[in-house]
Order: sequence, then C-alpha cells, then structure tokens
Amino acid sequence: MPDKPALGVGLVGYAFMGAAHSHAWRTAPRVFDLPLRPAMVALCGRSAAAVEEAAARYGWTGAETDWRELIKRDDIQLVDICTPGDLHAEIAIAALEAGKHVLCEKPLANTLTEASAMAEVAARAAAHGVRAMTGFNYRRVPAIAFARKLVTDGRVGQIRHVRATYLQDWLVDPSFPLTWRLRRERAGSGALGDLGAHIVDLVHYLTGDRITGVSAAMATFTDERPLPDGPGAGPVTVDDAALFLARLGNGALASFEATRFATGRKNQLRIELNGDRGSLVFDLERPNELWFFSRDDDPATAGFRRILVTEPDHPYLSAWWPPGHVLGWDATFVHEVRDLVCAIADGTDPAPSFQDGLGVQCVLSSVEKSAAQDGSWVAVPERS
Amino acid sequence: MPDKPALGVGLVGYAFMGAAHSHAWRTAPRVFDLPLRPAMVALCGRSAAAVEEAAARYGWTGAETDWRELIKRDDIQLVDICTPGDLHAEIAIAALEAGKHVLCEKPLANTLTEASAMAEVAARAAAHGVRAMTGFNYRRVPAIAFARKLVTDGRVGQIRHVRATYLQDWLVDPSFPLTWRLRRERAGSGALGDLGAHIVDLVHYLTGDRITGVSAAMATFTDERPLPDGPGAGPVTVDDAALFLARLGNGALASFEATRFATGRKNQLRIELNGDRGSLVFDLERPNELWFFSRDDDPATAGFRRILVTEPDHPYLSAWWPPGHVLGWDATFVHEVRDLVCAIADGTDPAPSFQDGLGVQCVLSSVEKSAAQDGSWVAVPERS
Amino acid sequence: MPDKPALGVGLVGYAFMGAAHSHAWRTAPRVFDLPLRPAMVALCGRSAAAVEEAAARYGWTGAETDWRELIKRDDIQLVDICTPGDLHAEIAIAALEAGKHVLCEKPLANTLTEASAMAEVAARAAAHGVRAMTGFNYRRVPAIAFARKLVTDGRVGQIRHVRATYLQDWLVDPSFPLTWRLRRERAGSGALGDLGAHIVDLVHYLTGDRITGVSAAMATFTDERPLPDGPGAGPVTVDDAALFLARLGNGALASFEATRFATGRKNQLRIELNGDRGSLVFDLERPNELWFFSRDDDPATAGFRRILVTEPDHPYLSAWWPPGHVLGWDATFVHEVRDLVCAIADGTDPAPSFQDGLGVQCVLSSVEKSAAQDGSWVAVPERS
Amino acid sequence: MPDKPALGVGLVGYAFMGAAHSHAWRTAPRVFDLPLRPAMVALCGRSAAAVEEAAARYGWTGAETDWRELIKRDDIQLVDICTPGDLHAEIAIAALEAGKHVLCEKPLANTLTEASAMAEVAARAAAHGVRAMTGFNYRRVPAIAFARKLVTDGRVGQIRHVRATYLQDWLVDPSFPLTWRLRRERAGSGALGDLGAHIVDLVHYLTGDRITGVSAAMATFTDERPLPDGPGAGPVTVDDAALFLARLGNGALASFEATRFATGRKNQLRIELNGDRGSLVFDLERPNELWFFSRDDDPATAGFRRILVTEPDHPYLSAWWPPGHVLGWDATFVHEVRDLVCAIADGTDPAPSFQDGLGVQCVLSSVEKSAAQDGSWVAVPERS
Repeated sequence: MPDKPALGVGLVGYAFMGAAHSHAWRTAPRVFDLPLRPAMVALCGRSAAAVEEAAARYGWTGAETDWRELIKRDDIQLVDICTPGDLHAEIAIAALEAGKHVLCEKPLANTLTEASAMAEVAARAAAHGVRAMTGFNYRRVPAIAFARKLVTDGRVGQIRHVRATYLQDWLVDPSFPLTWRLRRERAGSGALGDLGAHIVDLVHYLTGDRITGVSAAMATFTDERPLPDGPGAGPVTVDDAALFLARLGNGALASFEATRFATGRKNQLRIELNGDRGSLVFDLERPNELWFFSRDDDPATAGFRRILVTEPDHPYLSAWWPPGHVLGWDATFVHEVRDLVCAIADGTDPAPSFQDGLGVQCVLSSVEKSAAQDGSWVAVPERS
Repeated sequence: MPDKPALGVGLVGYAFMGAAHSHAWRTAPRVFDLPLRPAMVALCGRSAAAVEEAAARYGWTGAETDWRELIKRDDIQLVDICTPGDLHAEIAIAALEAGKHVLCEKPLANTLTEASAMAEVAARAAAHGVRAMTGFNYRRVPAIAFARKLVTDGRVGQIRHVRATYLQDWLVDPSFPLTWRLRRERAGSGALGDLGAHIVDLVHYLTGDRITGVSAAMATFTDERPLPDGPGAGPVTVDDAALFLARLGNGALASFEATRFATGRKNQLRIELNGDRGSLVFDLERPNELWFFSRDDDPATAGFRRILVTEPDHPYLSAWWPPGHVLGWDATFVHEVRDLVCAIADGTDPAPSFQDGLGVQCVLSSVEKSAAQDGSWVAVPERS
Repeated sequence: MPDKPALGVGLVGYAFMGAAHSHAWRTAPRVFDLPLRPAMVALCGRSAAAVEEAAARYGWTGAETDWRELIKRDDIQLVDICTPGDLHAEIAIAALEAGKHVLCEKPLANTLTEASAMAEVAARAAAHGVRAMTGFNYRRVPAIAFARKLVTDGRVGQIRHVRATYLQDWLVDPSFPLTWRLRRERAGSGALGDLGAHIVDLVHYLTGDRITGVSAAMATFTDERPLPDGPGAGPVTVDDAALFLARLGNGALASFEATRFATGRKNQLRIELNGDRGSLVFDLERPNELWFFSRDDDPATAGFRRILVTEPDHPYLSAWWPPGHVLGWDATFVHEVRDLVCAIADGTDPAPSFQDGLGVQCVLSSVEKSAAQDGSWVAVPERS
Repeated sequence: MPDKPALGVGLVGYAFMGAAHSHAWRTAPRVFDLPLRPAMVALCGRSAAAVEEAAARYGWTGAETDWRELIKRDDIQLVDICTPGDLHAEIAIAALEAGKHVLCEKPLANTLTEASAMAEVAARAAAHGVRAMTGFNYRRVPAIAFARKLVTDGRVGQIRHVRATYLQDWLVDPSFPLTWRLRRERAGSGALGDLGAHIVDLVHYLTGDRITGVSAAMATFTDERPLPDGPGAGPVTVDDAALFLARLGNGALASFEATRFATGRKNQLRIELNGDRGSLVFDLERPNELWFFSRDDDPATAGFRRILVTEPDHPYLSAWWPPGHVLGWDATFVHEVRDLVCAIADGTDPAPSFQDGLGVQCVLSSVEKSAAQDGSWVAVPERS
C-alpha cells in the first residue's frame, strides 16, 4: 500500500455527517484494495479548539479553521464538504476552481441557481480531470446497487409504478425546538430537501429514467416551536411533510412522500418498483434485504423473494465478511469513498455527478412550485 | 331459532359476489345469535337454467329471472344487489320504494347522479323503517373494526398522515381480454371505482373524518385489448391506475393509489395512519393482523406491535373459534349480514349507509375531475 | 345437485370441534361440486335440550342423545366423531362394524391399544368399502398441500432437517382452571397429544417419510390448578410441554416442540424443511403463505419466496374466490369433508387413514417412553 | 486523546477474524470516548511477507512472525488471539503469564482440558490485574444487550422456554472441499463448536442462568469430501449438525440446533425466550430488531413489538449515528473492544470471562457425551 500514489483529503464540517465521512475515509482503504492511498490530511471547522479535538478523535492529521486555507494546501487534492447546505456552493466552486476534487453532501445546494452554477463549474473542471461527486450515499447500499443491476438486466421490464416514501417522526412532539433544520434560510427546505432528495435521486438511479413532471402538496403541521437557546418561540419556515405524484419519461406513474411526522417510523426509506416483468422492494430499516418478484417464475411458485444481499455475488460484498454477515448504515459511505477514489484513479466521472445533484434539485424546485400553485402539474426542467 | 321472526331475502346476481353473499346468508345465523331468522327465499338472474342451478348450489329455495318479480314477492323483506354497477340504482330504488330493505354492493353506483338519487330514496325509506346498506365489506374485517376502536379511544391521537393503497396485478399481461370491467359504460371506472372506492370508504371509516379535497392522476397503460369473445381488439375505456393526494377535514395529508398493474400484488389493500399519539397499519394480505405503535410506550421498548386480531376481546371474534384461529376473506360478508340484520331488528340505520356510499362517490368523482384538469385540487362536495 | 346420491351424516359432539365440522358439512357442497349430496341428518349429544338447540343452530335436521341410536339409523351412512379422545375407540369401532363410514377427530385415541384396535377394524371395513379417516385437518391447509406437492415434485430434494413447533400460551396464568384437557384420564396427554399430534402427522405427510426414533423431554410447570367448578385445587396430570428430537427413515434429523406455555404465541404451528435442493417454511399464524427457497435459482437472486397460496393454480383454491383472497382456519374442515366425500364416491381410501392416525400414536407413545427413561432414544414401532 | 494512557495491542492471526478485530481496534476509539488509547502495535502471522502486507492493509504499525516474540514486547500490553482453536490455549496461557491482557476468540479451546487450564490461569492473572475475555461478540449486538436488560428488569419473568438455533447452509453442496474446519484435529468439532458455542453463550448471558443437563444428537450427513488442495477425497471428522434439548437451573426447558445444512439460511442465529411475564425474539439476519411481547399490555392490544434497537436509549447506540440508523455485524467487535478497554481501565473483570468460555465448553462437551451415549441426559459439570 505505501507505494500507491497518495490522495490528500480535507474535510469541512465535523457534525454527524463529518463523523460518518471520517469513518469512511479511515475504513475504505482497509476493506478495499484502492488504487490510491487516501491521506486524512486536515479537518476544517470554525472553532480551533473544537476542530482540533474532533480531528484527533476522527483520525485527521491536522486541522484548519478556514476552508479557504484548506483549499490552498498543496497536500490536499480532494475536498469533502459536510456543512449545512447554504455553504455548499461557495466551497465547492472555490475548490473545483482550485483544481481540487470535490465530494459534496446532499442536497447539492439550497437553491436551483446555486446548484446550476455548481454543475457548470463541475463540468468545466471535469475537462481538466478534476472530479465532483454528490453524496447520495444510499446508491451505495448493496441492495440498492443490486436492484439497479436487476433493472439494467431487464428483470423488471418496463416500469409502470414507483412508490417512494421516506418517513421519520422526530417532529411529532410540538416541544421539539426550532433548530437550523427548521429554518428556511439555513436548510433551504424541510422534509423535502432532507428526505425527499434521497428518494428522488434513488428513483432516478434505479429506473435510469428521470422525473418529468410533478403534482405536489406540502404541509407544516406545527408552525411555531420553542427557540433552541433561550425562552420564547419562533416560526417554522420549512415543510414538515411533502407529498407528490410524478410522471417519469417512460410513462411510469410514481408517488413520493417525505415527512417527519410519521409516528413510529425512525428512518424508513422505502421504494417499490413494479414493472411488466418483475417488481422490487427495498426498505432502509432492513437494508441488507431486497425483495424481488419475477414473472419468469411459474405462477404457482412465484412470490416476493427475500434476497439477503450479503453474498459474494452482490455489489461490494466480496471485500467484506463471509456470507450472511450484514453491513450497517456506515458502509454506504465507505462504498462512496471507494467508488470516488476509483473514478479519480481511472479518470472517469463519478456518479452521482453534480449534474445528477442538479437533476434532483430541479425536481425539488418543481415540487415547491406545484405545491404553491394548487397542486397542478409542473414540468421538471431538463438539466442541460 | 325457529321462533324468531323470519327475514326473507332475495339476491340479485350470482357471480363471484353472489357466491360470497350466499355464503354469508347461510353462515351468519350459524355463527351469530341473530335477532331475526334470515330465509334464503330466492336467487335472481336472467337465465332460468343457470339461476336455478346456482340457487340449488348456493342454498336458495327458489329462483327468479326478473328482479321486478323478486321485489314484488311478499315473502321477501330484503333485497341484496350483487349486479354490475350500472343496475344498482334502478333495482335499489325500486326495492326501497317497495318497502324492502336493501344491501347494495359497492361502489354504490356508476355515476354521482345515480348515487345521489339512491341516497335520497334511502333517506326517505329510513323514515319508514326501511334500511339500506352499502356493501363495503372491509369495514367488517375484525382488524379494521378494532383499528377504528383504537382511533375512537384516542390511541392514535390527531391524525397527520394516511397512506392507502390497493394493488392488484391482473392487467399486467397485455393479452388479458377486454371484459366488462374494462368498459366505462358497464363499470363506470376502472381501478378507481373497483379498488379506490374501498380505500376511500375505509379512510372515512377509520378516521371518522372526510376527504375534503383531492389532486389526482390517472393512467391507462394498455389502451387496447383483445375482445373476450371473438377475434379483434377494442379500446380500454377505464383507468388502469388512479393515484391521488388528499386532504382531510382535520388537516391530515393523505395519499391514495389504486392499480391493476402492480406486478406481484394479488390483492394488497394496505392502510397506514400516523397520529400524534400512535400509528396503525393494516394489510389485507394478512387480514388477521393489525400493527399498532403507541407513543404511550416508553421509548426504549416502543415498536410496532403485531396484534393477532383473533382473540375474544376483538370485534366479532367471540362468536367464532378459540383464540389464535384465523378468519378468511369470506368472514367479512358474514359480519356484514350480522350487522345489517341486527340494525333491522333494532330499528337503527346500518353503516355504511347509502349516504356513506354517496360520500365515496363524491370523492371518486372529484378524483376524475382533478385528473382531467391537470391535477389541480378539487374540493369534494359535501354530501348533504 | 338434487339428483346426486345422498350421504346421510350424523355428528357426535357439539363443542368447538362439532361447530367446526358442522360448518364444513354445510359449506363443502356449496363450494365444491361434490359427487355425493351430504345430508346433515342428526347431531348427537347427551343432553336432549342442549343438543336440540345446537342442532337447530348448526343446521342439523334431527338430534339424538345416544350415539348407539345414531349408528343404527338407516338414513345415516357416515358418523363424524368430535368427542373427547376417550370415546373415540368405542364409537368408531361400533360405527365401522355397523357399516358406517367414519371421520374421527385427532388424536385417534388416548392409548396405543385403542388406536391399534381402531386401525385393525378400519382395515377390515375398507375391504367392504367402508371408509375411515382421521381428522388431521391441517393437511388441508392449501399451503400445506402445496408444500407436499413441491416435495413430491423433487423441489426440496433429500430432506436433512425438519423443525416443527406448535406453540400456545393459554396455561401461562397459574389461575387457569383444571379443565378436562389437563386430566390424563380424559385427554390422554397434554400438549403432546393435543398439539404434538398435529405436527407429527404433518411431518409424516410433508416428508412422505416416517419418524423412526425419538429422544424426548416433557414438563409440567404448574402441577396444581384451581378446580373449574368449586373451591380447592387439583393435580395437573398431563404435560404442559413436550420436546423431542427425532430421526426419520431417510436420515433426516428433526426437532419437535409442543407447549402451552409460550407467552404471546396464540396458535403458532410452524414447520421448516431443509432439503438439498430447497427449503420450505409454513406458519399457521399466516396460513395463506408458504415460504420456499430453491437452489435452482441463481445464487445472487435466490431467497425465500413468500408465495401467496391463494391462486387458481394452488390446491382447493379454484373452487373458492378470485386470486388473492385468503381463506380462514375453517376452510381446512371444508376441504377435509370434500376429500372424504370424494374418496367414498370413488371407492378409495381417504388419507390420513386410521393407519396414519395409529402411526402418529406410535410416535407419541415412544415420546412418552423416552421421556420416562431419561431421554434415551426409543425406536418407534412400525405400524404394520 | 493523545494524553490518555496507551494500551499497546498485538493481534495473532489475520484471516477473517483478524480482519474483523483489526476493524474494531481501529474504530472503537473513534466512536467511543475510551479511557485508554489503543495502539495497534503489531500483527503476528507465520509468513513474513503475508503478515507485513496484512499489517499495512489493516492498520498495524509492525509485524511479527512468532507469537512468542509478540508476547515479549514491552510496547504490547494486550494480546488478541484470532487463530484456529488448537492454538488458543498455548498462546493465551503464555500471554497471561507474561502479564498481558488477553482477548481470545471463541470457542475458548478445542478441549475441555485446555479450557480448564486457561480459566485457571486467567483466574490467577486477574488477581494481579491482568484481564482475560472470551470473544463471544454476539453479546454486543445492541438488541441482545437490550434483551438482557429487559430480562434483568423483570419484563420477561420466570423463563419457561428457550429456543435457540444457528443455521447455515454452506455444506449442502457435497463438492464443498475438506477445509480445516471439517477436521477434528484442527477445529475440535463442527457446527457444535463453531455455531453451537455462540447460542450456548447467549442463552447463559440472556437468562443469567446455566444449562444443567443436555440430551443430544449429532449427525454428519456427508462423510467424505474432496481434498482442498489436490485430487482425491478425505473423511469429514466433525459434525455437520448438532441438536440438543437442555434444562436450565431454574427449570426452563430449552432446545438448541446448530447446523451447516439448512438450505437458504446464510447466518441465521435465532433465539426466543418465553417467560411468564413476556417473551423475546432475536434473529441475527435482522440484528437491529428485537421482538418483545409483554403480558403487561392489555390483552386486546398485546402483540409482539418490533423494537428498532437504533435509538439513543439503547445500549451502545448514543455513541453512533442519529436515531434509526442501523449497525452492521462489524459493530459487535467494536463494542467488544470498548467494553474490554473499559474493564481494563476500571480494574474490573470483563465478561464473558474465560470462566464463561469454560462454561460453554462444559456444555459442548456434555453434548458430545450425550450424543455418544444414545441421547440420554448428561449433567453438565459446574465450572468451579
């Protein structure tokens, strides 16, 4: 391993997502035989004391307090962005223009304008061998990657229906405080951008198609919440729930729901595809399983098969443990890092690209537009 | 039993639904201690030979070939209507006006006009002690009746979300023929009226609320099919799938889907309610189970409970078998007959009434309207 | 139907099992096109008033208070025995010797001696066209019958393992009274004969093999219980739980458990077979499903399939409802009656025969013997 | 972190288990705030080239080719043993006597004699503050640790039944080669020691009780297999499957099964406990779930609850990700390392101790004895 070329990495942000990405950078080279040797050069955050402690804790060699300095460092070739969405565009564009590869957490940006600018810069950077990836990590659940393979192998056939829901329940209690995720100026949107973005990207990925139109409704059930630091309350300025119907390019009819008010659902991302040859079902509460119904089976013994996606024949699995040993949520980031490093070494564009991230943003923006205009259908602009 | 007052019953129609209702009339007095003694007087159908054979097979004493004659008979006090939807209004209105109680299969009618007329006649008849019931049999699944009880007991709290789907797959094969169910003039609509009607009624029943607005999309994936009797093909004039978002009176946000193109789903009616105190999930593929999540449980041991609705404490169950013995789909009709007979004996109005049936029809009609006007929200007219 | 030969039926016993059998006799000719026309001639019980009421309730034309009189009646050709086990032998033998066909509830008898005598008489009767059947109704769950078909079709291959459990929980509460089922002189044994008998028969049926040896343990956790009618308590003289390991003729290794102390399990009969080509799993709490794993599937998409055994291709189903409509526990008796009537008409021996019932009894007896001699293996005597 | 006392670790073995333990040593200090700072000093294996490559890959600073040298190093305070079972005793005893803490993979040893000697040395070492732990990692699945808490909190009550199975299927194919795991001299036993050891330990842990007697049967279905390196075949000298009934100290009746012939079961460890207040079910195929039935619930709403053991209230979870994010199999080793390091820092004995490992060994040995003497009950010797 020591004789492989190094890939210096700097990470911006060290909350929940920063911890998950740190785990991935630490673990990926131990599990996979990567073509480059990632070096965890520096972690970046605003408070010097806090970022130094986090760097030591998560395994980063150094620390920075200004992301602009991070980008300038010669020993860093890749910038990983785990900040809230309102900083994504500025950092990513600066990093790409400085010739650094970028991994940017989802959603790509808080506004369509920012996302467009990012995608444009990424396209220019790619021409010079500089790579950009959007962090839709659920594409890297092995069961999802395997589902995609079944679709491309024709096992599902022409897709007629998609059902995609992402349900959480942490806002049911009205005394939950008004954190930054509930304020439009920081988070862009609520359940829509946080949860809806994931299922939109997964549907694009799994079907290989795109959402061409939406008809939407959004709701904020609790419109005022206690301030997180101090007495009093403030207005919730994002959606608690977003639902929409959608049409795909090939004519499939889809439904989407993202909510933080689904009592008892902690983190349930569920997708079902119905095609004219087969169906697939995935549920993030049981991420090591994929359910597959095939019309190729004789009718008497046909049934949804519970495939344990833990075998050497399945994506990513041969590098891990023996058959039947499940992976956790954290493995998705390990796979993301692996695929990104391989793409950089191969000189290919990683997926999901910033273009893909922009594609999701176009859908989210159309959803907001439809919800604002009485639910009537809005055509989703094509990402050029 | 012989000393109980008799209730002469005549049944119109002897296909699938006629068989199920016959089973119910035969079985209900054996399982439940009914206040009246149903007598299976006559079965009615157009072909004399066929109806006589069916009468003998299903246990009816006599047979009729004209429903008008059936209604005239003095030994019949109740008319059970199992014909296609286009005959419901005429028969039901004539029967009610002749002073016969009526049980009418769902959906109540093929058009809103017919349904309104039926509800009006039923209201007048009720004033004279003549009863009318719409055959939404799924209200009588014990798990559904028990779910309703949990809602009225306050165990679910304020409902925020409803997810209702009714999925079948018998139209996936394009060589499936153009039966009457695929022709608008006989069936009124496709998946919407056949499947969607059930889930609309169940949501009304379970929530005790009503759907006030809808935003809808419909699709016909296969627009031409082989004629059932002879060469050639004809146009499909009903929907293969209908999806809609809905708002309920209390502010809940709901999604509905009815389709005959969900590969692998044979008869999956699934409903989930999320309230601020608890959640409920029902799936018709496992009709003897109800899943319940309660926020009253301490968080560490909270989880969706799989309640086997097979115990003496559950609705209808004490009359059947010992604990743990499951019921089949047919039991729903047995319970329907039981409740109808009890209502007649008690002099109360059975539920779901024709008003309830009309309420469903109003929603279906609004769905078609919204789908026709680009998915924009349509307010559901209140059934007066 | 009226022109079919009649088959006069008399039923002895009208508790839980009598009600279930009555339902079956009433229903079978309505669902299936039977070759004979069952006539529900008389119900028999000791109390004249009670049996007359029950006869009216369950649909029997007449009533008798002495089973000897029932057997003498010329209008009765078949005697159905639903009494406690201590009366089975006497009634069945008398009926067979009087030339009446017999359906006898399980377990066949309380002792091996009685069971042997019954099987012997049944064999002699068969030579004269008189038929005898043991009421192991779970063979008639469509999913079980379909599982048997998969085994005989070679889809499971050589069976290596069997896991069979029948779990209930109604004795967990120590204040549950000392009913007849807890007294050896009436019931023969406890969980073993009541629940264990079912899973032993099912394993014989599904595998087509027989249990050749057992190693067993039994326990009575609560050895004294309140008397059911009056003050004081009495000793429990049967087992609360029986567990045993078993070997089958072909070398498979099996485990069995029958208990009434499995908290939360209301009526869970569960069987798993592992063969060298496939596996099967059945659970009576979800009786309309069969789980099938096939090594013929390619490894990446192999998984246990949840087959909804509700389709026209499945045993018994084409006579019932359209695809996807589940049956209840009661349907097993309807199928039992159907198969018995067909066998009588065809002049063939119905299964499970009294020989099969005796085969189960031999296993149960060996289990008791092994448990009494420190768990060491006991060879199961072959039913000759 | 740098100012915490270091704990130098040396690991022997770098196959599957070595990789898993390396992952744990790397990850534990990043997830948990450990009282000591583990340093991954050296990896030990016989081939210099291979062990150096593995050391670099898995994150170890140095490499050794002789475990005796590893033990001598002053910069190593803990020896982690991941070799096949026949080397456990020699290495562990030498390490403990050299004053090194020891983590030893399960089963503790291949023979009871070795295990006894190890436990004795561990007891002496503990008197000098040197700690020894047996690597039964499944105690560290959060759902299992939480199940233990429910038992100690009295939520299960007096335990009556235990059902424990560990099912795999990798030997179904007769062409699978004769690896070391199928040879008695290396592996000690087959399914019994590899799989059975885990479920025996878990039952000891979960119940807080011990197995006092067993009645067993073992089988080798395929007694000859192709040699792994070269032509020809050799005899399988271990069991393919081991089943046994067991009694616990408090009177509970248990069944155990360990097999490598359960077609379709990749790694299914399943445990069910039935007590007089509640029941628990765990399945390693869905390790982030625990099913709990409580008799404290009112009967109508009682049911097995599917608890997602992913919340901050659950063991280990607050250190990981937000609610609803599942962990993988690898996390069990991370937790094991955490608990071991905490015990060392606290000066307490970690669990499971070598005494616990010996306790399991006593059961396994009694199982072999019972199987050899016709299944009759064998009392399990108490570990003194």
